[in-house]
Amino acid sequence: MKILDLFNLTGEQRAKLESLGEVQVIEPAELNDNNIKNINGIYGWNKKAQNVLGQSTELKFVQSNSAGVDYMPLSDFADKGITLTNVSGIHAEPISEMVVAYVLAFARGIVTSQAARRDQKWIGDQVRMQNYTIKNRTAVIFGTGHIGRAIAEKLQAFGTRTVGVSRHGKPVAHFDQVVGDQKGVLQAAKADFVINIMPLTPTTRYFFNQAFFDQMTNQPIFINVGRGPSVDTKALIAALDQHQLAGAGLDVFESEPLPSDSPLWGMENVILTPHISGGFQEYGDEAFAILYQNIASFIQTGEAAINKVDLSAGY
Amino acid sequence: MKILDLFNLTGEQRAKLESLGEVQVIEPAELNDNNIKNINGIYGWNKKAQNVLGQSTELKFVQSNSAGVDYMPLSDFADKGITLTNVSGIHAEPISEMVVAYVLAFARGIVTSQAARRDQKWIGDQVRMQNYTIKNRTAVIFGTGHIGRAIAEKLQAFGTRTVGVSRHGKPVAHFDQVVGDQKGVLQAAKADFVINIMPLTPTTRYFFNQAFFDQMTNQPIFINVGRGPSVDTKALIAALDQHQLAGAGLDVFESEPLPSDSPLWGMENVILTPHISGGFQEYGDEAFAILYQNIASFIQTGEAAINKVDLSAGY
Repeated sequence: MKILDLFNLTGEQRAKLESLGEVQVIEPAELNDNNIKNINGIYGWNKKAQNVLGQSTELKFVQSNSAGVDYMPLSDFADKGITLTNVSGIHAEPISEMVVAYVLAFARGIVTSQAARRDQKWIGDQVRMQNYTIKNRTAVIFGTGHIGRAIAEKLQAFGTRTVGVSRHGKPVAHFDQVVGDQKGVLQAAKADFVINIMPLTPTTRYFFNQAFFDQMTNQPIFINVGRGPSVDTKALIAALDQHQLAGAGLDVFESEPLPSDSPLWGMENVILTPHISGGFQEYGDEAFAILYQNIASFIQTGEAAINKVDLSAGY
Repeated sequence: MKILDLFNLTGEQRAKLESLGEVQVIEPAELNDNNIKNINGIYGWNKKAQNVLGQSTELKFVQSNSAGVDYMPLSDFADKGITLTNVSGIHAEPISEMVVAYVLAFARGIVTSQAARRDQKWIGDQVRMQNYTIKNRTAVIFGTGHIGRAIAEKLQAFGTRTVGVSRHGKPVAHFDQVVGDQKGVLQAAKADFVINIMPLTPTTRYFFNQAFFDQMTNQPIFINVGRGPSVDTKALIAALDQHQLAGAGLDVFESEPLPSDSPLWGMENVILTPHISGGFQEYGDEAFAILYQNIASFIQTGEAAINKVDLSAGY
C-alpha cells in the first residue's frame, strides 16, 4: 500500500507503519507524475490530496486527521468507492475541557473582570454578587456523540443539569434528558448555556439563526465548538448586541481566520479562540494510533477497522 | 439579644431572626451612644464594629460574613471571651469553580488567544499544539479544608492528579495524596498547577516567596484564591518574568484594590480578578442560614452551633 502522508508523520511513526510489511509511506515532496497514479491511501487532506483523487486509479482509503469531514469531496469518495475514516473520539477530552473553560469564565466573572482590567478598573463589589455557580444551572447541548457526552459528563460533575439534543432524541449516558431538535430549541430558550457540537451537514447549516436566537428568553451563553457555518454570524452578533444572549464562547467561525472587519473581535461579552478547542500536545500520537489500526486492518481484510464515515450522512 | 447588622439583611431575614423572640436587629443607622453599650452580637465587620467592640460591655458573639478572619482583632476577642463564627463552607462551590476556570483558561489556550486577540492575531496553528488537557496533569493544593477538598474533587473529575498539602499531612477525601508542608514544596516543584487556599496566619504569611518559586522546575501555573499576603508579590512578579512560573491566576492581592502601578495589571500571562472567587448570587442566603442557626443556638444554649473559629489558630 502506498500511503501519502499529509500530516507530518514522525520518523518513528513512519517506520512503524512500514514494519507492517506492505506499506510504503510517501511524503508530499516525493510525490511525482508516476507514483501519484498508484497512491492507495491518503492521511490528511489538502490540495495535493485533491490532485491524487483526480489522478490515482488505485485510491481506496482516506484517513482524515479531523473529526468533521465537511471540507472533503464526500460524493466523489462515494462514486469511486473510497473508504473514509476520521479521528472522531480523540477530540472529546480537549473540547469538553474547552467548553467548561468558556462556561466558567462567564459564570465566575472572569470575562467581566478582564474587560474592566484594560482600564485598571477594580470591579469586585459589582461582579461578586453577579457571579454564579454552575451548580443547578442548565446546559443544552446540541449533539450527543462522543464529544457531547464528554461535555455532559464534565458538567454533571459540577451539578449542572444537562439536556442533549439529537435527531433521535433517545437517552444517552451523562445527559439528564435527551430530546429531538424541535424540543431542543424550546429547552434552549430557558437554558443558561446553549452549546453546539453538531457536525456540519445540510441540516445543521445556519441552524443557529435569527429565528433560533429570537426564541431565547433566559439570556443564555452561546458556545460553538462545532462548526462555524452552523451559525448565522450576523444573527449571532445581533443577538449579542440586543442581549438575547448574555455572551458567547466561539472557537469556530463561518470564515476562518476570522476576518479583520468582524465586530466579534471587539465584543467584550465574547471569548474567541482561533479554532483550537480540539488541539492538544498528544494529538499526533492519538491520531496515528487510529491510522495504524486502520491500515493494519486494510492489509489483512481490505476494510478499515474503526471510525468509518457514512458518506451520505456526512459524519 | 441585640444584633448589629453590617451585612444588609433583607427585611425577610430580619423578620425571621426577630421571630426567634429575644432578638432585636439594629441597622447601622440606628446605632447611637445608648444602644451601642448593649450590643450583644455583630453580623459582619467594619469600623463601626470596631467601635462597638470598644464600647459595648455586653458583646459576646461576632458572626463574620467571610471564611477568612485575618482582618479581625482576634486577640481582643479572646481577651473579652467573645465567640467568633465564620461562614466557612459556603465558598467551597464558587471558589472551586473559579480554580477550574483559571486552570482550564491556561491549559486550553484561552489566555494566549485572548492576548493575541488585542492585535487581531489568529494564532491557531501556534496554540493548537501547545494546548494541553488537564487529564493526568498534577495539581498541588496548599490547604485541604472545605475549599481545598472541593477543588480536588472537581479536578479529579477531569482526571487530574491531586496532591494536598496540610500541616497534618493525613489522608483527606478527593486527594490522591496528602503531604506535610515541606514535602508539599517538593511536590509543587514538579507540578503543573500550584494552588493556594490556605488561611492567612503568621505561618502562611509570605509562604510563597522567592525561595519557594526558585524551587519550581516545571514552570507551573500558580493560582491564589486564599489570601493576598500569603504571597510575596515582588517575588511572584519576578518568577513570572523569569518563566519560573508559566502563568498565574490571582484573585487576592497583598494590597486591594490592586495598586494602579502594579506590573500585574499588564502581564499577559496573568488572569486577575478583583477578589470575587467566593462570591455568588445566593451568598447572602447561605451566609444568613449560618447566622440564623448560630443565633438560635445562642438563645437556647448560650453557645454558637457551628463554624466556631479557633482564635489562637486564626481559622
